[in-house]
Amino acid sequence: MVQEVREAQQVDAGNFESIRELAQQLRVDSIRSSTAAGSGHPTSSMSAADLMAVLLARHLRYDWDRPDLPTNDHLIFSKGHASPLVYAMFKAAGAISDEELLTFRRMGSRLQGHPTPVLPWVDVATGSLGQGLPIGVGVALAGKFLDKLPFHVWVLCGDSELAEGSIWEALDKAGHYGLSNLTAIFDVNRLGQRGETEFGWDLDVYRARAQAFGASPIVIDGHDLGEIDRALGEARVATGKPTVVIARTLKGKGFSEIEDKDGWHGKALPEDMAERAIAELGGIRDLRVVAKKPEPGEVARKPNSPVQLPRYEKGAMVATRKAYGEALVALGARSDVVAMDGEVSNSTHADEFAKKYPERFFEMFIAEQQLVATAVGMSVRGYVPFASTFAAFFSRAYDFIRMAAISQADIRLSGSHAGTEIGQDGPSQMALEDLASMRAIHGSTVLYPSDAVSGGHLTRLMADRAGIVYLRTTRGAYPVLYDNDESFTIGGSKTLRESPDDQVTIVAAGVTVHHALQAADDLAAGGVRARVIDAYSIKPIDHDTIAAAVQATGGLLVVAEDHYPEGGLAAAVLESLVPEGLPLRLAHCAVRGLPGSGKPEELMDAAGISARHIVEAARNLVSNS
Amino acid sequence: MVQEVREAQQVDAGNFESIRELAQQLRVDSIRSSTAAGSGHPTSSMSAADLMAVLLARHLRYDWDRPDLPTNDHLIFSKGHASPLVYAMFKAAGAISDEELLTFRRMGSRLQGHPTPVLPWVDVATGSLGQGLPIGVGVALAGKFLDKLPFHVWVLCGDSELAEGSIWEALDKAGHYGLSNLTAIFDVNRLGQRGETEFGWDLDVYRARAQAFGASPIVIDGHDLGEIDRALGEARVATGKPTVVIARTLKGKGFSEIEDKDGWHGKALPEDMAERAIAELGGIRDLRVVAKKPEPGEVARKPNSPVQLPRYEKGAMVATRKAYGEALVALGARSDVVAMDGEVSNSTHADEFAKKYPERFFEMFIAEQQLVATAVGMSVRGYVPFASTFAAFFSRAYDFIRMAAISQADIRLSGSHAGTEIGQDGPSQMALEDLASMRAIHGSTVLYPSDAVSGGHLTRLMADRAGIVYLRTTRGAYPVLYDNDESFTIGGSKTLRESPDDQVTIVAAGVTVHHALQAADDLAAGGVRARVIDAYSIKPIDHDTIAAAVQATGGLLVVAEDHYPEGGLAAAVLESLVPEGLPLRLAHCAVRGLPGSGKPEELMDAAGISARHIVEAARNLVSNS
Repeated sequence: MVQEVREAQQVDAGNFESIRELAQQLRVDSIRSSTAAGSGHPTSSMSAADLMAVLLARHLRYDWDRPDLPTNDHLIFSKGHASPLVYAMFKAAGAISDEELLTFRRMGSRLQGHPTPVLPWVDVATGSLGQGLPIGVGVALAGKFLDKLPFHVWVLCGDSELAEGSIWEALDKAGHYGLSNLTAIFDVNRLGQRGETEFGWDLDVYRARAQAFGASPIVIDGHDLGEIDRALGEARVATGKPTVVIARTLKGKGFSEIEDKDGWHGKALPEDMAERAIAELGGIRDLRVVAKKPEPGEVARKPNSPVQLPRYEKGAMVATRKAYGEALVALGARSDVVAMDGEVSNSTHADEFAKKYPERFFEMFIAEQQLVATAVGMSVRGYVPFASTFAAFFSRAYDFIRMAAISQADIRLSGSHAGTEIGQDGPSQMALEDLASMRAIHGSTVLYPSDAVSGGHLTRLMADRAGIVYLRTTRGAYPVLYDNDESFTIGGSKTLRESPDDQVTIVAAGVTVHHALQAADDLAAGGVRARVIDAYSIKPIDHDTIAAAVQATGGLLVVAEDHYPEGGLAAAVLESLVPEGLPLRLAHCAVRGLPGSGKPEELMDAAGISARHIVEAARNLVSNS
Repeated sequence: MVQEVREAQQVDAGNFESIRELAQQLRVDSIRSSTAAGSGHPTSSMSAADLMAVLLARHLRYDWDRPDLPTNDHLIFSKGHASPLVYAMFKAAGAISDEELLTFRRMGSRLQGHPTPVLPWVDVATGSLGQGLPIGVGVALAGKFLDKLPFHVWVLCGDSELAEGSIWEALDKAGHYGLSNLTAIFDVNRLGQRGETEFGWDLDVYRARAQAFGASPIVIDGHDLGEIDRALGEARVATGKPTVVIARTLKGKGFSEIEDKDGWHGKALPEDMAERAIAELGGIRDLRVVAKKPEPGEVARKPNSPVQLPRYEKGAMVATRKAYGEALVALGARSDVVAMDGEVSNSTHADEFAKKYPERFFEMFIAEQQLVATAVGMSVRGYVPFASTFAAFFSRAYDFIRMAAISQADIRLSGSHAGTEIGQDGPSQMALEDLASMRAIHGSTVLYPSDAVSGGHLTRLMADRAGIVYLRTTRGAYPVLYDNDESFTIGGSKTLRESPDDQVTIVAAGVTVHHALQAADDLAAGGVRARVIDAYSIKPIDHDTIAAAVQATGGLLVVAEDHYPEGGLAAAVLESLVPEGLPLRLAHCAVRGLPGSGKPEELMDAAGISARHIVEAARNLVSNS
């Protein structure tokens, strides 16, 4: 490949010819990095190169030496597969070297196949389409309502990803909240992975949709630098609405052999083609952009006040979802704590926070993908977001949660109404697979309090926990079990019944703790001594306490959970204990059938997870041992 | 409560006064059932009662005695919480008795809190909002392109759920495929669960959005029977577009104490209020509707031809995703097999089916929620749908998959590009939590073939398997391991290395099978005999074979999986073995860090799941035993 490198030259931001050269460099570098890697998406990069060249040279306000500067603009590639382009921009900005550019997609390189925040100039991981724009909405919400800073959020979207409903959830919220600090740039290159997109170059469809969803659309030729410049300039002007720049572009623009041709999605050019392409694009350049500096400003944040958790009387009947809401209000004393909900805040009890701190509460309506994306965006801005909905409905945002883990975002999710315990509403509202799905998220924490005191303490602990932290709460009110000053830790548990001659260990969490206690009492009445552990921290699980209990009780173990049998609490316990070869005999009380409607106690009993089933399981274990 | 019941009278479908009486009955019955239950959503039912009365009496073509008649119209309550209304309609149609109506939400009743197909007149479970319309699109696609029958699909949507992106994915596809056999009725009652919806009664917003997404909007007063009738009549006329009837309604319509008042979402009326409401609504009635009969017709389905799986040469390098595509083509000989993909068919290899059977292939573009919803809709119509995308991107539709299980839909999902094995594209494209999340789905089947022969056989077995069946396939090509005539069963496994004096069991699946075989060879060279099991059926897992192996090898077990440690293959094995108290010592090779980009073999090695890690794990187990 041509390796002739000219001396670094500065782009003249006042001269479109110079910016055109920059655009060609971005194309050339996209080809060079992907050809070196042997994979990647050069053609999807080339279509947007003019758009990004104008943005980088004339509109993006960013201090490339200080990516953590709170006044910097944000640039999110929702079309994450155009990573060669964003990396080429980083090189043009002087943030990475040409040498590093050519490590694209190699083992150990920061320049992964799709962008991730391993790079300091990348806010969030993208590559699952339709997520960058929703997260950009979260960032822009923080900018407008919390930081109150004039930074702008620029999101580059592909046209294929406009088929994702999440894009429209995002624009809808951007319109609703009047986010004129947000600009989505639709790179309409007409060609998807396996042929033409749904609408090709019918830009009027996108214009009508953007408008109907509350944005100001600007339709342009995405290769006309003047048009791009005018559009991006207009976009930055506060109009009370988000802007959508709809740009007609050519995939593979600039290399005649592949320009606007199908069959070149996600394909690196072979060496010989790359040489011809680079030649046609005018060769390798080393142009450098001196970006506009961010406008000065200070984050508007009030000082924190001390957090005082509410106190509960032992034995009082309080739902853990209520305890969550009350603890969240208490955490509101910290000015970095923000909350958002999916139009069910009167059920999740996030409404208590909304009432006390309306300026830090964001209603996301029934749009769970946007709910989680907003939390991720807030995390990008350094806030401590708590997002809540019914536990079952976080499944709607599972891909967003998966990606948030790759983004190494710190978000807290509170899912109420878990399990068959919810009763009459029936199975559509029951989270019965959430412990499995949330445990499997990389680096996640999964908590499930049994009472209001532990619920409050765990909610407080969530605030300082990194990564994806999931709290499962219960609909019904159950007695407070713990003293207010009891200590709880992530990775901890509580042993609620214990004697030196226990015969069987019962591990429960959340609502089944109450059934386990009842079971232990019933077993004791029948002469069987059971140790009862409240495994309120499901991930990480309290290995040491459970292992010691199981050893003390001859390996006899009952696990009771309001969850399907796969991947939940029992799996957490087994994954923890079996590697060391502890002798174990498990009786597993879990929800095996498909529940219907009924009273909570009827459904839990029918599912085989109520006290009498725990008693029976424990008795069988003991008598067969 | 007033229990005075008049004698059953027939509704005069030609007389709006009679239909108005029917609407009042639907309201009264919605109140009676929910008040009897002590919970439910009467006000959300009352807003739509006029819409549904006109539909039921004058437009719905349905033989209530024969719900499985293929010519019947379909009625889907996307706003599933309005279940009192749909159950009241069933009573008015004579399908259920008044006595059964009053069992609403009781333990064992078919009339659950949200509708499920436990009732023969309910196609799919709803209650997770924004799902009924996407599934309706699937049903309408089948009606137009496969059945070629004149039935119409009617979907009642709430206004709150219009915030879900999935609604717009659905309308987009309905527009794209010109589904004039589909009508969405938006019941715009202005009030959500915790206050006003985003747009209140701004019907123009909904009109503009529906139009921009390819539908014909008709805006009406949802309590004016004449307007409703004209709109539904127009809706049935084939225009080449789906219709959206946007109806302005009052929540709680008809009972002045709560009509259009906030704070009454999801609340049953107390007995005394219910009595006043019923009085204001004109008392209890027992009106019966004689519905229009379906238009006659026959499902257009060709006879099946025998399925001949492709054959592979042992040792040939073939990717299991390729084997999936080829087996799918073979299954195409069955005329009930249909396929759909999320714009990645050239990666999942569903494109091979698309080429051979274009009339039975449906491109869903990048809209995974709609992809799964279409499969569910096809399942409603008796087809055998296979939906494919990258395994990671099924996480986008996790709530749809969860709900499909409650719908007892029979759908097959093929997820390609699983695990770190995908290499350079990086973590956004790697499914690493799918085994956990899919195993936790009620009644699911989870398959993970290691080679092309098993991949083909398992794909074929999927066609006749009920419930949610998930196939995980691998990006790269690996050697064919099995003879073409080898038999594979759901719940089975293959023991690939075995001797009477094996010292350790290695359980692997998919790509790690190849590493396990290499490891066994390396171990043998070092004098350690390992049994190797290909656990291609992860749920159900082959308990007997694995238990016997583990017993034969003194409890020493290595599980190797290209998945995060939680809830995947190891959990499946442990959940299966531990209940019987087998002595076990597990070494678990799984992906513990957050992967980046690199070559597949580099990433698998870095993750600790390659042959040398399996060797090390096995050696350590054996030497410490």
